[in-house]
Amino acid sequence: MPHIPTAPHSAGIGSLLSFRPETAKPMMELAQTLLRGESSLTQGERELIAAFVSSKNNCEFCTRSHSAAAWNLPGMTKELVFSVLNSIEIPSISLKMKALLTIALKVQDNGKSVTDDDIAEARKLGANDSEIHDTVLIASAFSMYNRFVDGLAAITPTDDEVYERMGKYLAENGYGKR
Amino acid sequence: MPHIPTAPHSAGIGSLLSFRPETAKPMMELAQTLLRGESSLTQGERELIAAFVSSKNNCEFCTRSHSAAAWNLPGMTKELVFSVLNSIEIPSISLKMKALLTIALKVQDNGKSVTDDDIAEARKLGANDSEIHDTVLIASAFSMYNRFVDGLAAITPTDDEVYERMGKYLAENGYGKR
Repeated sequence: MPHIPTAPHSAGIGSLLSFRPETAKPMMELAQTLLRGESSLTQGERELIAAFVSSKNNCEFCTRSHSAAAWNLPGMTKELVFSVLNSIEIPSISLKMKALLTIALKVQDNGKSVTDDDIAEARKLGANDSEIHDTVLIASAFSMYNRFVDGLAAITPTDDEVYERMGKYLAENGYGKR
Repeated sequence: MPHIPTAPHSAGIGSLLSFRPETAKPMMELAQTLLRGESSLTQGERELIAAFVSSKNNCEFCTRSHSAAAWNLPGMTKELVFSVLNSIEIPSISLKMKALLTIALKVQDNGKSVTDDDIAEARKLGANDSEIHDTVLIASAFSMYNRFVDGLAAITPTDDEVYERMGKYLAENGYGKR
């Protein structure tokens, strides 16, 4: 049961966000800009970073919803998403994406874990300033969302079908409509 | 040196935020609402939670700037802030504040570390739903800001005077003006 009163028949982060609309608004605006705004990373790649960081934080709700969002976007498949969550040492992602996921993993641990070499490696493999900024910020932001969801004990549905529906919705509508 | 281009003569999170105004805007709006918006926790208490979480994340820039913001606000002293950063097992903070800092510390580790007993204890000592929500969200949000600052290697001034000036500015102006 969530630690604060939530709307009936609601689950996950949505149920918590309804508690305080003034903080919910910038939180959703940040997600929308990072995951759906202008970027040379695809929306699927950005959702994959979000799902990957959420899985490292053991946040089941965020891992499953953002995984489903990722595989409902162009260029991603369910198999690829599951493979990445299991290990980024796979041939089916680009070397640039692997370098960005390595940075995301270090940010998830602690910002100070990111080294000059990690950044140099990502650049060598084609990452630009915006991709580096956005990867660090997506990983940082999900270190917030994950803690908010689990720290307030949001209801976490167990049924795959719920996440598939959520993923489709997020792939089509993003985070702008509340 | 920061991992992305920043404005000259700038330091800390401000120098990174200038890189992408569309993401900076909701990040600052969230800080302003959480730390300066309506709350039954004082602004000093909220800055103290922010500084405390930042210190646990070893983010020097955020620890020193939010510590200085805290002790430049009513009801806080430099001595009290330093004492809390050293240990929350001190007689000079209320039992309610100690319970909220305990929750913040668990959120800093991982959202799942917060137990029903932690929440029950905070309630028993007088914390209300909003204080619990805001404490979890401040701790979550600083788990983002800290990672953003260190993950992109923001310049961290060493001089106490810089932080004293920043703390005074933040105490007087908050996070709304950029």
